[in-house]
Amino acid sequence: MHDFEDEMDDDLPRVVIVGAGFGGLEAARGLRHAPVRVTVIDRSNHHLFQPLLYQVATAGLSPAEISAPIRAVLRHQANAEVFLAEVTGVDVAGKRVLLGDEAVPYDYLILATGARHSYFGHDDWEPFAPGLKSIADATHIRRKILLAFEAAEREDDPARQQALLTFVVIGGGPTGVEMAGAIAELAHMALRRDFRHIDPANARIVLVEAMPRLLGAFPEDLAERVREHLEKLGVTVLTQTPVQEVDAEGIIAGGERIAARTVIWAAGVQASPAGKWLHAATDRQGRVFVQPDLTLPEHPEIFVIGDTAHLEEDGKPLPGVAQVALQQGRYAAQVIRARVRGLPDPPPFHYHDKGSMATVGRAYAIVQMPRARFTGFFAWITWLVVHLFFLIDFRNRLMVLFQWAWAYFTYQRSARLIVEDPPRAASPAPRVPDAAGV
Amino acid sequence: MHDFEDEMDDDLPRVVIVGAGFGGLEAARGLRHAPVRVTVIDRSNHHLFQPLLYQVATAGLSPAEISAPIRAVLRHQANAEVFLAEVTGVDVAGKRVLLGDEAVPYDYLILATGARHSYFGHDDWEPFAPGLKSIADATHIRRKILLAFEAAEREDDPARQQALLTFVVIGGGPTGVEMAGAIAELAHMALRRDFRHIDPANARIVLVEAMPRLLGAFPEDLAERVREHLEKLGVTVLTQTPVQEVDAEGIIAGGERIAARTVIWAAGVQASPAGKWLHAATDRQGRVFVQPDLTLPEHPEIFVIGDTAHLEEDGKPLPGVAQVALQQGRYAAQVIRARVRGLPDPPPFHYHDKGSMATVGRAYAIVQMPRARFTGFFAWITWLVVHLFFLIDFRNRLMVLFQWAWAYFTYQRSARLIVEDPPRAASPAPRVPDAAGV
Repeated sequence: MHDFEDEMDDDLPRVVIVGAGFGGLEAARGLRHAPVRVTVIDRSNHHLFQPLLYQVATAGLSPAEISAPIRAVLRHQANAEVFLAEVTGVDVAGKRVLLGDEAVPYDYLILATGARHSYFGHDDWEPFAPGLKSIADATHIRRKILLAFEAAEREDDPARQQALLTFVVIGGGPTGVEMAGAIAELAHMALRRDFRHIDPANARIVLVEAMPRLLGAFPEDLAERVREHLEKLGVTVLTQTPVQEVDAEGIIAGGERIAARTVIWAAGVQASPAGKWLHAATDRQGRVFVQPDLTLPEHPEIFVIGDTAHLEEDGKPLPGVAQVALQQGRYAAQVIRARVRGLPDPPPFHYHDKGSMATVGRAYAIVQMPRARFTGFFAWITWLVVHLFFLIDFRNRLMVLFQWAWAYFTYQRSARLIVEDPPRAASPAPRVPDAAGV
Repeated sequence: MHDFEDEMDDDLPRVVIVGAGFGGLEAARGLRHAPVRVTVIDRSNHHLFQPLLYQVATAGLSPAEISAPIRAVLRHQANAEVFLAEVTGVDVAGKRVLLGDEAVPYDYLILATGARHSYFGHDDWEPFAPGLKSIADATHIRRKILLAFEAAEREDDPARQQALLTFVVIGGGPTGVEMAGAIAELAHMALRRDFRHIDPANARIVLVEAMPRLLGAFPEDLAERVREHLEKLGVTVLTQTPVQEVDAEGIIAGGERIAARTVIWAAGVQASPAGKWLHAATDRQGRVFVQPDLTLPEHPEIFVIGDTAHLEEDGKPLPGVAQVALQQGRYAAQVIRARVRGLPDPPPFHYHDKGSMATVGRAYAIVQMPRARFTGFFAWITWLVVHLFFLIDFRNRLMVLFQWAWAYFTYQRSARLIVEDPPRAASPAPRVPDAAGV
């Protein structure tokens, strides 16, 4: 039995990592053999595999299958501790991370706090068009979608029934495309025989994008293939159609009203408040401008990585994708390892683009790699293998593989649960924050 | 393509079933070949396998793994429709079930609305000692347990830390016993290496029972074996210890205060408000007195079954267990089948006790059958096979079996998720109720 009170070595340089997403966890793991004390702070107790979050929102996977407790991930890393806590600010001069009344001192700080969705100044749209960033967001959207079918089954008025069976996804990036494809399949396949007074196959799914085409980050021909495949699944794709209004009755887009009781926001993201904590210069999306070593100007002890950072390569800011966060987390750990050992810094950060991919419904995906691009079933298998590989927990890999195989052969969804939270308990909560998603 | 508007036959006798638990679903299935129109009403969209709910509360299983959408269960039963709705009353004279402003007429009514926990007149205890009846209850308790460990990790005051690491389960019936065993294993096995400032193995689990022994419904020697096994797992078992007070600091039981930040209620149940809807005579737990054919006196068209009904055999009321509900659901369907066909009623309901079982942590259970009783590993295998067999969905059986096998060999828990609900949307909800529990 070892002495738990003494497990952390107080004399080592202390690295505080805020956020246990892809970037933060990769940084923590990169420091596992370094002579430092690592403290990971997150307001959620779990690491979340965000690329599959849309499958939770569309009842394909359970929350636990794409999550792993941060503590369990770092269980065998003896120099790492985990705090479930909400960061309220950073005392840059005093080198302390503030958690309400408490403060955690640091020698090195890595801010990897990610991004939230942004409504481009229309925050009043949020109640009608929820976005998808956390498990709570996903179960909220799942509930909204499933309740719309339930309400339509009991609705006599044809106009109201059609509005209940209309699903609008705003934003034609990868999340919007994947969401729209998944809702189409849910309605047209999984729910097909489950109702007596409506035919879910009549559900209308509309994907709305302001730009002239879907998937701006992909080559045009791939985006065109995706559009064709979405239309084959029964999705109405409206490009060059900016959204002007979102309310309880639906949206106005391109001057026309679409009556829809379910609207999902997949359009914009905004960096977390790390820039405000640091009083640092940020871009319009709130991302902190960092130097080529990912640190804040004049603060070589503060790293900002992933979706929270703005770093340009070839004149363009790096995209907000998992690969950038992972590579930056690894790089920040590398720099800190060098510095605590008195070695020279590694060369500036350089992003290795390994390609990107998006999936559209069942058995179809597009893959773009530096030297190859392909679409269809084989691309879907590639998508599947890559996503399984990056899932952090071996058990989750097996579970997700099983769910996908089951869904593939039966057309069914495993997690069609509508659950509300019970009334909040009156007992004083333990001294930790509400643990809503990152 | 068939005409969805016409799928239900309006001319057939209409059977309305309220509640899609074991009894309600079994009744619906028993009517699948009968010339009737079946309407199943539940305020939740899923059937819940309650005997495994404690495993969701202790992070062993995901909610979706012990649930099945009611619609999916009845998908192939063409004479059945499903309403997600909250029943507000019954118009007995007008033969209508009331759903707020709406009413659903019936020729036969089956009330299978189950039970909630009861605080024996101390409803003010509920916020401090949540009970376990719905998925929302289970994730609430899971959050409470996991947050207590998180808070303890960051607590410096030893007394407060000990209170955070003390878990009290009130009630020594099967649920309480299974809960206490599962928390002990969670603390002593699954979380063992995950913290740096506390040792979860020091967590104190206390099971409190007012009666002289655990498991009053089981033979005394089996109950004694359970007590021994619980103590081996590190559970403090206090029998003959009535609870006098529950508050934010813990409980007072048998005159002594136990400081505990997590208290779980597994002591009493109370029937759902079916008795009030019917203005019928009920027992102290609110169960409706029914006749030997499970109908209300003077109302041969109204059946009350399962935990909501009070029927005596051999001078004792039948217990509130799944087997009673299943057999009564089957019987009610049998009576209705006879009546719509103009045949004589079947003989009065008789409960066939097939035995009962309880499990205590990993690889230990007790089984009591009419002609046999056994304990230990073989009993656990029996428990496991029986529970898998009764899970309603084949996919769920595979998933749960996989989770159990994984947990057995790794000592890990799969669903250690702390998730809060997002703030409620301001948009007007669809015309269906909040879908909490039952």
